[in-house]
Amino acid sequence: MLDFQITRTDSGSAARTGQLTTTHGVIDTPVFMPVGTQATVKAMTPGMLAEVGADIILSNTYHLYLRPGADLVEKAGGLHSFMNWPRSILTDSGGFQVFSLKGLRKISDEGVVFHSHIDGSRHFLTPEIVMDIEQKLGADIAMCFDECAPFPCSYEEAAQAVERTTLWATRCRESHHRADQALFGIVQGNVFEDLREKSAAEIVALDFPGYAIGGLSVGEPKQDMYRILDLTNNLLPQDKPRYLMGVGAPEDLLEGVKRGVDMFDCVLPTRIARHGTAFSHCGKVVVRNAGYAEDFTPLDPDCDCQVCKSYSRAYLRHLVKSEEILAHILLSYHNIYFLIKLMQDIRKAIADNTFAQFYNNFYENYRI
Amino acid sequence: MLDFQITRTDSGSAARTGQLTTTHGVIDTPVFMPVGTQATVKAMTPGMLAEVGADIILSNTYHLYLRPGADLVEKAGGLHSFMNWPRSILTDSGGFQVFSLKGLRKISDEGVVFHSHIDGSRHFLTPEIVMDIEQKLGADIAMCFDECAPFPCSYEEAAQAVERTTLWATRCRESHHRADQALFGIVQGNVFEDLREKSAAEIVALDFPGYAIGGLSVGEPKQDMYRILDLTNNLLPQDKPRYLMGVGAPEDLLEGVKRGVDMFDCVLPTRIARHGTAFSHCGKVVVRNAGYAEDFTPLDPDCDCQVCKSYSRAYLRHLVKSEEILAHILLSYHNIYFLIKLMQDIRKAIADNTFAQFYNNFYENYRI
Repeated sequence: MLDFQITRTDSGSAARTGQLTTTHGVIDTPVFMPVGTQATVKAMTPGMLAEVGADIILSNTYHLYLRPGADLVEKAGGLHSFMNWPRSILTDSGGFQVFSLKGLRKISDEGVVFHSHIDGSRHFLTPEIVMDIEQKLGADIAMCFDECAPFPCSYEEAAQAVERTTLWATRCRESHHRADQALFGIVQGNVFEDLREKSAAEIVALDFPGYAIGGLSVGEPKQDMYRILDLTNNLLPQDKPRYLMGVGAPEDLLEGVKRGVDMFDCVLPTRIARHGTAFSHCGKVVVRNAGYAEDFTPLDPDCDCQVCKSYSRAYLRHLVKSEEILAHILLSYHNIYFLIKLMQDIRKAIADNTFAQFYNNFYENYRI
Repeated sequence: MLDFQITRTDSGSAARTGQLTTTHGVIDTPVFMPVGTQATVKAMTPGMLAEVGADIILSNTYHLYLRPGADLVEKAGGLHSFMNWPRSILTDSGGFQVFSLKGLRKISDEGVVFHSHIDGSRHFLTPEIVMDIEQKLGADIAMCFDECAPFPCSYEEAAQAVERTTLWATRCRESHHRADQALFGIVQGNVFEDLREKSAAEIVALDFPGYAIGGLSVGEPKQDMYRILDLTNNLLPQDKPRYLMGVGAPEDLLEGVKRGVDMFDCVLPTRIARHGTAFSHCGKVVVRNAGYAEDFTPLDPDCDCQVCKSYSRAYLRHLVKSEEILAHILLSYHNIYFLIKLMQDIRKAIADNTFAQFYNNFYENYRI
């Protein structure tokens, strides 16, 4: 099941708020989904995720398929039960990961042969097999198996990926049967506008309950991403959720929302946390910097998360320099909170019809 | 300040329960103190520590002196404030760590010259300097700077360590002035009974509010440890807390309590957690074992901690094999809970006058 209701629309942009209802709960959109690649959001307990207000997380089919395997997760009662996460989950299709395995994979219309990054073992994924895996994992939202062309790539490569993505989306739709799980289509086309138009038309014709914009944030200039988002906004049905895959920088969330995006996911908050970097309302804070050695102020004075309420930059720097696990925990907690709170603030601004003002204020303070 | 009241004594052994009151709270004894070496108990937030029932933790003077430095911790308002831990803290003296730096140190009656394990820099610690550091750190309980002879060592080496420990204890006592911090003496003497008697007599004559038994659990056979504990029980005043340093295996906690010990600390629960091993009522569980791959039962069916209530062995094994930080978090949580709960159960058994029965039951289930 999946229900999506738009609650407010911004008068000056494509931004809108909505409510997405899945088998496991109601999600206010626009929403940021933390990534739990291997059935865990790195350095976070499910309790912490609930505390920072995560309503939905993403998990990676490619990783779970390889380890511990979809059959084991199914035996555990599905991903929610396996990882002790009672709220909503979305699984990607593994396409992006498989196509990122340079030199390790071989693609045909039938599917993809690739070698595991863990032990080199040989695997074959088809749209039908991926649907079987995602249905066993049992997330609330599953994604179609798609071909994501790299950036840069030729027009011909991008065109072939679009064709194959449509072919596979048709087969995914046919082999997906789980009533408690929604299947989203994915639009490809790289930075080529006519390919985006073709892909969107073909995928939308298959009538999915939601649509993802794939193949962005893969290395292209930001202006290309924004241009394609502007275009895609007009190609996707207004009444269905739109999901921009792999995007999580604060400014990109804001730019995405402005262009009509409802859902985002990214490893960025937890990845930069493990490298000792934190988001703040003024831009990124590199906690290791010597300048913070005796700085007893919070990470971000404008943040009201438990980390900012309880710990100083000096202590966090000590943890980072001492390579303590608690550094990963606390910075991941703050960074995920930061993005979730940003989305809350964005939703409030849209509801209050002050989104344009919010947008301008954001850039006044934030150094990219 | 420090107050210690014995509340119950076991009729069949030296075991007793008590209440230890520090500047930061009341601690039921016998107590296990988790170790927060670098001002953090590895992979645990202060909130988790409170949740598992930790009333007091230990932190290491040697590590904090080197990084971030005692002056910085003092500027932060002391260790409690720096690390956001409102309950009691004990700091060791750094003696054990410095004497473990084989080849990197030079000892005289004046003090110890050593080289930092972090950057090789040269440092000089004396009893006076250590007292200055511990008072700046501001724990509720500080330990005297002592010389811990290695095991095995000659009688002459052990005798010299005892002499120096008494000399340094006298100087520590003279240079310790913080009224809100209690200073404990440490008894040395290795496995030599007459040296233990001499050390205990000299240290007790200095009249400390509590006494530690040092130089055990350093590699000697368990029978030697138990023999020395039996002896020391009769050498230390009954009305003062006794602290067995560096001991944390479940069976050693039980054997220590039986011999009149009130306080314990050890890195064991968090260290074995990071290697994927968990305590259970049946003995250690090596979570990585293939036999647990599809085991959807809790880590320890007899444990009621949040980890055992919420996660399966199969999931924990997946986390361990995937080298996820959450494995460290959840296993550390469970292992610390396990030891704290064991001490709760021991206290209850002493109070109910069923300690002998508890002791026998423990060994019926537990494989060492």
